[in-house]
Amino acid sequence: MLTIKRLAIDTYPENTAFMLRESNGYSAEQFQALRKIRVSDGRAEILATLALVDEPALLKRGEIGLGEQAFRRLALPEGASVAIEQAMPPPSLEFVRRKIDGDTLQDDEVSAIIRDIAAHRYSPMEIGAFLVACAGFMSTQETLAVTRAMADVGNRLDWRAPLVVDKHCIGGIPGNRTSMIVVPIVAAHGLIMPKTSSRAITSPSGTADTMEVLASVDLSEEAMRAIVAKEKAVLAWGGKVNLSPADDVLISVERPLRIDTFDQMVASILSKKLAAGSTHLVLDIPLGPTAKVRTQDDAVRLRKLFEHVADKIGLVIDIVVTDGSQPIGRGVGPVLEARDVMAVLRNDADAPQDLREHALFLAGRVLDFDPALRGGRGYARALDLLASGKALAAMERLIEAQGRQPVKFALGEHVHEVLATQEGRVGAIDCHRIARIARLAGAPMDKGAGIDLLHKVGAQVRKGQALYRIHAQSRTGLGFARDLAAEDSGYEMAG
Amino acid sequence: MLTIKRLAIDTYPENTAFMLRESNGYSAEQFQALRKIRVSDGRAEILATLALVDEPALLKRGEIGLGEQAFRRLALPEGASVAIEQAMPPPSLEFVRRKIDGDTLQDDEVSAIIRDIAAHRYSPMEIGAFLVACAGFMSTQETLAVTRAMADVGNRLDWRAPLVVDKHCIGGIPGNRTSMIVVPIVAAHGLIMPKTSSRAITSPSGTADTMEVLASVDLSEEAMRAIVAKEKAVLAWGGKVNLSPADDVLISVERPLRIDTFDQMVASILSKKLAAGSTHLVLDIPLGPTAKVRTQDDAVRLRKLFEHVADKIGLVIDIVVTDGSQPIGRGVGPVLEARDVMAVLRNDADAPQDLREHALFLAGRVLDFDPALRGGRGYARALDLLASGKALAAMERLIEAQGRQPVKFALGEHVHEVLATQEGRVGAIDCHRIARIARLAGAPMDKGAGIDLLHKVGAQVRKGQALYRIHAQSRTGLGFARDLAAEDSGYEMAG
Repeated sequence: MLTIKRLAIDTYPENTAFMLRESNGYSAEQFQALRKIRVSDGRAEILATLALVDEPALLKRGEIGLGEQAFRRLALPEGASVAIEQAMPPPSLEFVRRKIDGDTLQDDEVSAIIRDIAAHRYSPMEIGAFLVACAGFMSTQETLAVTRAMADVGNRLDWRAPLVVDKHCIGGIPGNRTSMIVVPIVAAHGLIMPKTSSRAITSPSGTADTMEVLASVDLSEEAMRAIVAKEKAVLAWGGKVNLSPADDVLISVERPLRIDTFDQMVASILSKKLAAGSTHLVLDIPLGPTAKVRTQDDAVRLRKLFEHVADKIGLVIDIVVTDGSQPIGRGVGPVLEARDVMAVLRNDADAPQDLREHALFLAGRVLDFDPALRGGRGYARALDLLASGKALAAMERLIEAQGRQPVKFALGEHVHEVLATQEGRVGAIDCHRIARIARLAGAPMDKGAGIDLLHKVGAQVRKGQALYRIHAQSRTGLGFARDLAAEDSGYEMAG
Repeated sequence: MLTIKRLAIDTYPENTAFMLRESNGYSAEQFQALRKIRVSDGRAEILATLALVDEPALLKRGEIGLGEQAFRRLALPEGASVAIEQAMPPPSLEFVRRKIDGDTLQDDEVSAIIRDIAAHRYSPMEIGAFLVACAGFMSTQETLAVTRAMADVGNRLDWRAPLVVDKHCIGGIPGNRTSMIVVPIVAAHGLIMPKTSSRAITSPSGTADTMEVLASVDLSEEAMRAIVAKEKAVLAWGGKVNLSPADDVLISVERPLRIDTFDQMVASILSKKLAAGSTHLVLDIPLGPTAKVRTQDDAVRLRKLFEHVADKIGLVIDIVVTDGSQPIGRGVGPVLEARDVMAVLRNDADAPQDLREHALFLAGRVLDFDPALRGGRGYARALDLLASGKALAAMERLIEAQGRQPVKFALGEHVHEVLATQEGRVGAIDCHRIARIARLAGAPMDKGAGIDLLHKVGAQVRKGQALYRIHAQSRTGLGFARDLAAEDSGYEMAG
């Protein structure tokens, strides 16, 4: 038996255990050759990657060091006694191997894999193997099984209502912060819309990051329930309520490997919706040359897959393929996007009209789910709720209910303007490039960092006129972003 | 800039760098989200996985800790100044991604991947992704490109002779230690046979492990050259001469994922042969229900792939498909196998005849490469060299030249006999099972651990008679092996 010592070493996302090379009668090197050990006190258990320590300062004989992830997940106190053994690979890895060999998996086999992944029994390497095997070929039935299994392993919210609406965009378009306009419109109408959002993974801001500029988003399930009971809606970060935890683990591997298949996208989004208790979903698929979906054929293929899986899991889905040819709104990054959203809700004269129109369109489709409004009357109702200030009032109530931010986040004070190098009309704006520049400036970690787009596609600009403004909170961030913009600004002039 | 501190933490096979979470003006968490950083002094560089430390005892501000792998591979002294930056993924990862998407890669793309893998620029997760994508589909041209690229990145031995013979078995059959008989026979005949072997990866012993019972195998290239100049042959561990180093990295991922495709096997074996300077190779493919190749169709497919690739890289290959239905010889494990090998070389009356015959057959095929012996006269010559004691003398000279072991390795003193549970004829012996039991007993790390098979297929045994004897050097090892044998001994009685 070994005694647990907590080591303040963060090896995200992996569990790591540390052992003296010469210690305790365990043949540490033989364990390490197999890379993984099982640490257990007979009840709690984790699998961990083993690092061998030759430095007696770090560990004493008879101790096993646990890094932060391992310590937290094992959830035993320091000093507790544990035994270790060579970790048998999770039995479900055999199914992964069959998938690698080209087999199609049964539902229960898919379930077993997803359960083990959610329980952190797979190493990133093993998760990568599963994802790559799935990227090779996945049947619709397998995608459905993954979706169901992912929704099943975490928490399931139940709002005890026949109509729980939701709206989701597959992402990829900077500034496209419509949820923060759609939710207050729908709440003002009176439908239940408990919106859980993610933080940005590869983009300069997620809805949770931007909403957090205005209010707390880090809400417990109880807090969410109380707010929804009163306001019909909420705009919360989904991380605290443990929806589809396997998805978070999968994403931690998909991101560095840049695996972004339609199957994974469908399973990821729909499993979260199922777990969040949504019954009716409007799904936005932006189509454009620098968006996630770049051809009409792909849009149709993705749409059919979403429809098939949604139908099988009992989710009513309304899919809209929208213009993803350039960023939406002006601001890119949390503070700048929050500014645009509030300008639209306040009906400011200079509010970005594309963001306003896109949000109204989506809100209208969501409201169309209301039996009382059938027949396409949703849009008119949405427009009325926005123009009358009722949506703004609903948003203010949501902010109060969630907890208004005590201080106002400032826009990054380090500023650089990117100038037009020639006179002409803006022909195209590269969504992917703009997102990368905004991220290098510091978004979303630095809430005030980002890009303020001064001209959009179609605008006539003079040589030397500013195309956009980069904001950063640090000189370093500004430097990174400026260098990337100097290489390629993401703007292309027409003709 | 940060100062290097060496940390005695072994994170095989990965490079790991340790940084204080709050330190040095670097946004450590942003680096970690991307999992890999580039550490460089402007000339030397490595990529490393980042672990964040919150414990000031381990690192001071301004320091970067390097684990053993990272420290050794960067090869800069402690205290040297380095800069770190977000590691751009190696550009060749883009080719891996295309492979995941189902593309076929060009030769130069394959080369770039293998070069980056050999230079430790890929994480295990990325290597896994490459291997799984290849397991999905690989063209013959791609297998050839991988083979060439793997041979190219390491050392290439050149023996300055038109005929450099070699013999290789794809493995999987316990006790099949023919190289240690074939090499002295061929050396006694006078052909050049500089045999480099691996240590066991998943088996209870590799040729290098068994040869090491008798002599040093850890030879430099210079030492190998001197021995070959004098004795025509050598039986060395290949690890010291850096042949096909990408193979070792790939194997460190193939093993835990249990990826064992024909393409990888061909590339692994032939790249090592090409790098080792072999011109003529006899390749042994054992076929049997518990061997690596289990059907005649598979044997034909594997053989064609070997022939195709060997032909393209200019290696003369003679492939033999042999009986892999049960272990060969009696001993399984380094000391026991060395005993069998020496018994055959000494022409002992009770030497295992199946090992003798198999070795003679293979030696004959190798000798057939000699133009002076064409027409199948190799076997008779091999028999003559063995029976006359000339092969034994050659082996003794090799042992002396490589450096005889000063102490005799003892057989493991903890012994357990596995008994027949019924009377009858031995119908089958499971190669895979016997190998696992021998490994749990401690082989190959404990040289005296292993299994001594007392009866082979066809033998008539009484109930309660010992089928085999497990030897272990530790009580724990014996316990593990005994438990596994109790579950299933690996022996099946006929009728």
